[in-house]
Amino acid sequence: MASVKAPQTRAISAYGYEQAKALTFAKYGEPADVLRLHTHSISPAHSTNLTVRFLASPINPADINQVQGIYPSKPAFTTSLGTTEPIAVGGNEGVAEVISTGSGVKGLQKGDWVIMKSPGFGTWRTHAQSASADNFLRIENKEGLTPHQVGTVSVNPCTAYRMLKDFADMNAGDWFIQNGANSGVGRAAIQLGKLWGYKSINVVRARDSGMEELKADLKGVGADVVVTDEEVQSKEFMARVNEWTNGGREHVKLGLNCVGGKLATSMAKALSSEGHLVTYGAMSKQPVQLPAPLLIFKNIHFDGFWVSKWSDSNPVQKKETVNHVLNLIREGKFKDVPMQEVKWDWNTEQETLVDAVSGTLQGFRKGKGIFVFGET
Amino acid sequence: MASVKAPQTRAISAYGYEQAKALTFAKYGEPADVLRLHTHSISPAHSTNLTVRFLASPINPADINQVQGIYPSKPAFTTSLGTTEPIAVGGNEGVAEVISTGSGVKGLQKGDWVIMKSPGFGTWRTHAQSASADNFLRIENKEGLTPHQVGTVSVNPCTAYRMLKDFADMNAGDWFIQNGANSGVGRAAIQLGKLWGYKSINVVRARDSGMEELKADLKGVGADVVVTDEEVQSKEFMARVNEWTNGGREHVKLGLNCVGGKLATSMAKALSSEGHLVTYGAMSKQPVQLPAPLLIFKNIHFDGFWVSKWSDSNPVQKKETVNHVLNLIREGKFKDVPMQEVKWDWNTEQETLVDAVSGTLQGFRKGKGIFVFGET
Repeated sequence: MASVKAPQTRAISAYGYEQAKALTFAKYGEPADVLRLHTHSISPAHSTNLTVRFLASPINPADINQVQGIYPSKPAFTTSLGTTEPIAVGGNEGVAEVISTGSGVKGLQKGDWVIMKSPGFGTWRTHAQSASADNFLRIENKEGLTPHQVGTVSVNPCTAYRMLKDFADMNAGDWFIQNGANSGVGRAAIQLGKLWGYKSINVVRARDSGMEELKADLKGVGADVVVTDEEVQSKEFMARVNEWTNGGREHVKLGLNCVGGKLATSMAKALSSEGHLVTYGAMSKQPVQLPAPLLIFKNIHFDGFWVSKWSDSNPVQKKETVNHVLNLIREGKFKDVPMQEVKWDWNTEQETLVDAVSGTLQGFRKGKGIFVFGET
Repeated sequence: MASVKAPQTRAISAYGYEQAKALTFAKYGEPADVLRLHTHSISPAHSTNLTVRFLASPINPADINQVQGIYPSKPAFTTSLGTTEPIAVGGNEGVAEVISTGSGVKGLQKGDWVIMKSPGFGTWRTHAQSASADNFLRIENKEGLTPHQVGTVSVNPCTAYRMLKDFADMNAGDWFIQNGANSGVGRAAIQLGKLWGYKSINVVRARDSGMEELKADLKGVGADVVVTDEEVQSKEFMARVNEWTNGGREHVKLGLNCVGGKLATSMAKALSSEGHLVTYGAMSKQPVQLPAPLLIFKNIHFDGFWVSKWSDSNPVQKKETVNHVLNLIREGKFKDVPMQEVKWDWNTEQETLVDAVSGTLQGFRKGKGIFVFGET
């Protein structure tokens, strides 16, 4: 009996060649100018090769910076996708399903879900072949998880998790303050912090409308206090921090900063002595200004965190962190960030995909952009 | 037979009262405006009291800031020196000799040399009485040491010592870069670093004359490279650092900053990945500016160091550090900084003493100001 499914226009060749599409660039520039949807074929997996089919790949701000050429980790440009000019595949995070393995592949089999062990693999594509299973981290138990959840666990939740754990000596009852509280990292920090008993002061950009909804939304996932960037920089802010923290008896040991500029300085002032301000982004493009007395007399430490470098240096810890977060998701203790799905089927046009990438750095978004692969 | 010594005009009363003078202030302000030479008498030591006679007390820049009221640690204002208005005694560092002890004093006896365990005691005075021996750290072996050396060991050499030891993982062959290289801390860092096998890039203020002498002077105590602040901020500086450090194969793991502003940012850029910039002063009064990529992608850490707080929190380690430096001095391995002596006899006028304090923050000095007590 004939299937009711629409006929697919793509074909797998008689020799087992897989047809694939990838969002690629041959030179750095604005996504709209340089991204091209490239079609190529993938040979059957043999020896230690394996072929994967992507299920979901988010669009992170750092991915855009990488396409623009202003990100310190550079992608690999290669002619192995059948071009004369070397090209790179965009994207650094995602989840894929193993669809075939060479006879020499150990530890992974058809049907397994994998995420990237390190950035740089190129995840904005329907299929990929890897020379080795070493590029992937196997999801030990995919039950109860969606591709959306698994595909976005590596960057934002891991960043929030390690920043909360690895800098200040945080104990239940301690506070942290963060800007970009509405971001993927921000929401992950609120939730993880709450699970571990930390209280949070959450800074979001002031906006003309929707402020009350946003506050309610963040409080719904566990935020103790939500304030605007303008409030943080007001004269009254220190007095308010003092109120929230029981006259300073509860310590604000940690600040998480993805904005920079004067806002970061104001946040540093709200930290208790010996506190840490950890910078993981610079949305304002302004440097962090450190009045010397904060450094010398309050002994505030200023550090940075880059999940890419951390992942490369701590592969075992990365696996543990990912598994811990996935378990929390499975147990219903950790909610997804709001996402804006971009469906990627075989027939999806280049323009649709490029628009999704280009829109990521602009203004207030309804959620995190994520490619979700359908009929590929 | 009569002594040839000039007759002293001061008297010790029949009841053992000691006459003392102290450089004091009743309110914060510029040293010339607020410092007064105050004469008072000290009762005989009894129970756990002990009386000391100062031998040498330096004038540190932080002491001036304390008189100005802009230093975070405030001195104790008291009426115990016989005034109706509470006054504080200036100075935070120095060496004194025990001249009498109450019967309840343990661990200290007449003739012992002591330094202050913590700042805040007030060292710009001929004599002092302390309610307890706990304020003092006994010099175990004063043989071969001058009061100048012992009186200046607590602040500058301890600051340099702990900054070199406690922030970066420094090994023989590693580099550090520091500004204010001609200061007490700077010269101590050069010498201690050299003893431990560290190489140093030393930044001094550009000057119209005497540059070659200064370079030779600092190289004489162990500096590997001496450069001006202007050179550090030039485009070619990174290439020069690269040359000195064998193409970057030798790492610049540590920066010591007492200036701030753009100079500190330039120094941070010269650090290797994972480096630490430790701020212990802010001579430029400009904040340290941290471009986010230095924090995030190079993982440079920005810390502060305050020897006062460190001393209070680490009394045992302070004693060890002081003893280690004093041993190095005794063995001829650690040279005094150049000093500008201000002799303080019983008859020395207030104006002479106040002028010495006022001059400390001004321009290029021939050496560190230090009160050396004679006939008191």
